[in-house]
Amino acid sequence: MMISKVKNAMSNLVGGMMPHGHHHHHNHHAGGAQTCGPDGLPPRFPYGRPEFLELTPELLQYSTEHASRPVLTLKRGTRLPWRTGYAEVINAGKSMLNEDQACCEKLFVKKPSGKHRNSTLLDNNADGTGIPLHFWGVFDGHAGSGAAIMASKLLHHLIKDRLGEICHLLENPSSAPPICLAKNGNPFQVESKKGASQEPEDPDAVCDSSVRFYMEKVVSLESLIMGVIETAFKQMDDLIEKEKASYAISGGCCALAAIHLMGKLYVANAGDSRAIIIRNKEVIPMTNEFTPESERQRLQYLGFLRPELLGNEFTHIEFPRRIQHSELGKKMLYRDHTMTGWAYKTIIEDDLKFPLIYGEGKKARVMATIGVTRGLGDHDLKVYNSNIYIKPFLSCVPEVKVYNLEENKHGPDDVLVMGTDGLWDVTTDRDAAEAVSTYLACCDPSDPMRYTLAAQDLLMRSRGVLKERGWRLANDRLGSGDDITVFVIPLVGHETDT
Amino acid sequence: MMISKVKNAMSNLVGGMMPHGHHHHHNHHAGGAQTCGPDGLPPRFPYGRPEFLELTPELLQYSTEHASRPVLTLKRGTRLPWRTGYAEVINAGKSMLNEDQACCEKLFVKKPSGKHRNSTLLDNNADGTGIPLHFWGVFDGHAGSGAAIMASKLLHHLIKDRLGEICHLLENPSSAPPICLAKNGNPFQVESKKGASQEPEDPDAVCDSSVRFYMEKVVSLESLIMGVIETAFKQMDDLIEKEKASYAISGGCCALAAIHLMGKLYVANAGDSRAIIIRNKEVIPMTNEFTPESERQRLQYLGFLRPELLGNEFTHIEFPRRIQHSELGKKMLYRDHTMTGWAYKTIIEDDLKFPLIYGEGKKARVMATIGVTRGLGDHDLKVYNSNIYIKPFLSCVPEVKVYNLEENKHGPDDVLVMGTDGLWDVTTDRDAAEAVSTYLACCDPSDPMRYTLAAQDLLMRSRGVLKERGWRLANDRLGSGDDITVFVIPLVGHETDT
Repeated sequence: MMISKVKNAMSNLVGGMMPHGHHHHHNHHAGGAQTCGPDGLPPRFPYGRPEFLELTPELLQYSTEHASRPVLTLKRGTRLPWRTGYAEVINAGKSMLNEDQACCEKLFVKKPSGKHRNSTLLDNNADGTGIPLHFWGVFDGHAGSGAAIMASKLLHHLIKDRLGEICHLLENPSSAPPICLAKNGNPFQVESKKGASQEPEDPDAVCDSSVRFYMEKVVSLESLIMGVIETAFKQMDDLIEKEKASYAISGGCCALAAIHLMGKLYVANAGDSRAIIIRNKEVIPMTNEFTPESERQRLQYLGFLRPELLGNEFTHIEFPRRIQHSELGKKMLYRDHTMTGWAYKTIIEDDLKFPLIYGEGKKARVMATIGVTRGLGDHDLKVYNSNIYIKPFLSCVPEVKVYNLEENKHGPDDVLVMGTDGLWDVTTDRDAAEAVSTYLACCDPSDPMRYTLAAQDLLMRSRGVLKERGWRLANDRLGSGDDITVFVIPLVGHETDT
Repeated sequence: MMISKVKNAMSNLVGGMMPHGHHHHHNHHAGGAQTCGPDGLPPRFPYGRPEFLELTPELLQYSTEHASRPVLTLKRGTRLPWRTGYAEVINAGKSMLNEDQACCEKLFVKKPSGKHRNSTLLDNNADGTGIPLHFWGVFDGHAGSGAAIMASKLLHHLIKDRLGEICHLLENPSSAPPICLAKNGNPFQVESKKGASQEPEDPDAVCDSSVRFYMEKVVSLESLIMGVIETAFKQMDDLIEKEKASYAISGGCCALAAIHLMGKLYVANAGDSRAIIIRNKEVIPMTNEFTPESERQRLQYLGFLRPELLGNEFTHIEFPRRIQHSELGKKMLYRDHTMTGWAYKTIIEDDLKFPLIYGEGKKARVMATIGVTRGLGDHDLKVYNSNIYIKPFLSCVPEVKVYNLEENKHGPDDVLVMGTDGLWDVTTDRDAAEAVSTYLACCDPSDPMRYTLAAQDLLMRSRGVLKERGWRLANDRLGSGDDITVFVIPLVGHETDT
């Protein structure tokens, strides 16, 4: 019976991408298929757990037990790139299936081949060429698992393909990327002008025997790779929107990705997942969280400049609580998009609208609807019982931080930890660093499972154990009832990894 | 002849507020006068240096010598609150007069008296009551000194008056400010409702025997004081705009203010001036600079959402250099308001417009016009030879940082340094901290001039000395040719100050 429940859910309710009841493939879909290649993109992504877990149907079933919340880890025989450790657990009942997803892949960046520059989803680098790229992603879905599943299957390919387009620049890392490219991808230089200049005289202009040039910013290869990641997130978001025309892709997701390329780690975050580096037991934060509180001013600014997006239901001004009719004409604390502090204002009729940003901490919401402000998907998310779309207030662009792996010395207990908010809601960075460092110090350095065991240990600290009064931590505080996903990635010793 | 040159400049060219040739006082002005009180606001602010310098006309004349650039400091007999040290120097010729201004005052916060709650500009606290408030401001003018002079005369009074309005809350610092105030200033509480609720049921709602309340944020007194400072900057900016209807107030200014109130230091910055605390020889940055580079994304976002503000002349997209017509259809590096990294885009006609943000470092400009993005004034600043206003892209709101003086131990060499960009363009935080710490360590602790001498020493390190090839530093690099203003404010020993 339980099996059939899950099977049913997987095929109907909260699955990944399923054809709409009344839809057939039409032009919208052709656009999506074009981007991904006719032989690349599978027609749909059913619900499942990450492939590297190699779950049997029975184990998949077992993984959904909200009552016991079994922790899933890598099997002893499975080895991920860099000996990456992984653990996950389902929520305590807030959704039928685990809305987190994860991805860990080694890829190879190559020049696009063929005329169509299709994504090479099924290319497993048979010829062993290209620049190695490691990718880790955690995707925390909401309102369904469709967007999270799709992103976990495709985002790394989009990044790889975009890097492929600048492959010739990556192969020559010592010279700065050219500012202008001709259609063939070669640097393009304007030829020196003969006769009168078409442009007005510019005091910054410099005359050279061959080229007349102006101020020119030097753009580093690193910031070009950051741009690749940023634009790949946008492309992923567009792709979800396009595919929605043909498939039901439910919900949205926070996306946290770590990319290792040419000695540097790029950590890109859109949402409220978190990554930290633990080096010599010290914490190096690699992400900021994007929530209604942390992005209040950006959202208020948009509401202020484009009040029509608030649909006459919301005010961009924040108040510390709802205002009642009887308070009209009184003075109340407020802050607008320009302010960090609070001041008093006289309450007018317009202030009685619901605030765009409302609530505190984990309960803070955009238009009473969503608790994160960056991520992928959510294109059809509306305020309940209204025609007001949330999407214009959400950003799909990640913040990217760079960590130079080669410039720092690392021991075997130095790791990158990536986790969804379920982990961090109850465990601080400091506590996580201490737990992981302590655990790894006691663990056989040659055990191939050591990072997975550390991930499992960390996860358990946030999930807790089931007592009479719910999931409880060692200190008897409440454990996280959310889905939890954790990667523990060692920063050393991967030279020998394939 | 030199005297007459300056006199002429002071009365005609770049003076503070002067009546327009063809204007008479009209309604606009009545509004301004109302705000400041009929017996408060002087009718105009002629050019001058801070009053605490007590310059004679001859010394004022001497201060404008661009060739020798004499450093002005406090006279030996003059004592500023907290033994504050001060030094200033004029630029090397970029404007006739020194466009920096400064202010250092001790004030007393009191309940507003009388019906009109006028500013009490001339109130010197004859009765010795009120909460003591210390204020330091540096104002770095551009395109004239009018805005800087006006702000240096009024901003602290606006802050004091606004604090007066919440005086009853300041007097009771242990309880959080009430969220809602009745017209008499007392806390207002909604009475419990009898019968049916007018509002839809809210799951967050809590029932209480007397009051029904919802989620309610606790706002600290500290964040209320931050709000006072933020809104006082806005009021100052509005006041400059209003007064412009009756007086010629030239240009705009960066504004950096430090306010000491009830044991805490509030440092508010709008522009590219900088404040650092030097504690035990270590630097604690108290400001961020607001420039076209640091605020690129905010400005691009506005240009993206309100393209009409760009007047069909500018594009919100940034390119590393100007694009030429012959590059249409090629690919060029760019970044938009969402990006930190760079990517390639195919150049279209629209990209040939001038970029909203252009240039690097000190040469970066908004619409080829201005190099700072926050400050006061500039209401009539336009792009050269166009009808495009800069003001919508500028913000008058400061970023406020708080430093708890009482929670930290300080020695006599621990100071707050405030300086205009002329200082910091050539001297790093680190070098400034070292210079000040070294200087003060060798200086008689009882010398009332020690902080002024330290300010002078610091200033000299940025101005340098005049050699054959211009103003040069000790290391022979080029000194700052800008106006320089420095406060060095000790953080200890002011308990005995009056």
